[in-house]
Amino acid sequence: MGRWEPNARGRLEQAALELYLERGFEQTTVAEIAKRAGLTERTFFRHFADKREVLFWGSGTLQEHLVNAVADAPESAAPMDATAAAIESVGALFQERGENARRRQAVIAANAELRERELVKLATLSAALAEALRRRGVAEPAASLAAEAGIAVFKIAFGRWISETGGADLSSIIRESLDELKAVTAGR
Amino acid sequence: MGRWEPNARGRLEQAALELYLERGFEQTTVAEIAKRAGLTERTFFRHFADKREVLFWGSGTLQEHLVNAVADAPESAAPMDATAAAIESVGALFQERGENARRRQAVIAANAELRERELVKLATLSAALAEALRRRGVAEPAASLAAEAGIAVFKIAFGRWISETGGADLSSIIRESLDELKAVTAGR
Repeated sequence: MGRWEPNARGRLEQAALELYLERGFEQTTVAEIAKRAGLTERTFFRHFADKREVLFWGSGTLQEHLVNAVADAPESAAPMDATAAAIESVGALFQERGENARRRQAVIAANAELRERELVKLATLSAALAEALRRRGVAEPAASLAAEAGIAVFKIAFGRWISETGGADLSSIIRESLDELKAVTAGR
Repeated sequence: MGRWEPNARGRLEQAALELYLERGFEQTTVAEIAKRAGLTERTFFRHFADKREVLFWGSGTLQEHLVNAVADAPESAAPMDATAAAIESVGALFQERGENARRRQAVIAANAELRERELVKLATLSAALAEALRRRGVAEPAASLAAEAGIAVFKIAFGRWISETGGADLSSIIRESLDELKAVTAGR
């Protein structure tokens, strides 16, 4: 058994993001990530299945967070309000991750395979969100439409937040984008 | 040079869809598709780069169709109205393809790699639609929000049309779904 390494996961993630940006995702090896973090490959594989998982390990937490926020919304909340509460709460999570969320996105934008993986992740989140809305008694197609619209707003707000360094916080950009969506779909 | 084969592309597509449904996409070979169509492998490769392209060759046409419909919408049309016109016109294209559109979707639903490819296609269409809206002078994030909402409506309406055999036509389901989206985002 290896000795206990303080914050090994965080150090590995940090090292991986730096290397993916410096050299490209494809060109980086697990050995290099471990070395940069001052840890062993063995420690890497105790935390991550492979180098792609460093970028996507948060998907499960994200989905759980979204689903719980929908379930916790007041009974009187309309489908889109429950959805809005869910994506705003996820926005707060990303806000906390700050610079790492930006770095991760830059790595993904530079690689076609990672962009596909990200699309699959977003589609999975949308399906989970729709399912959470149906459990609140929202009928189809309203549940799927609210979920798809919510994920679209999140994606677009996230892109704006990433590009506006030092600007507004993600939750306010999400709220603004939701208002824009309302205006756009209302035909204004 | 091969002799001229009447409607070779259509016969190959038909044969491919049948075989993908009978045996699965992975298990079907180009030789089998050509044989079922009564044509040679050489003829197959004059029409399609590989067996996946039989399912995705229409993407370019679809994108052109969407972009042209947005460009052709009256100058006074609001972003969401131009988007609605575009996805309704694409709906009419699919309606014409009828049973083959349903078969294609069943093949894609059964295979993870094809589902990913379909997500990439939809993301590409959404980006092209947003670009067409920006060329009409629509600002961001309204252009991207309208495009994402439009593609989401199309995807959901298409799924309903596929599952309701012999039901309403795709264009009316698209119009209904657009109205539902308006109601959902307005918080009703």
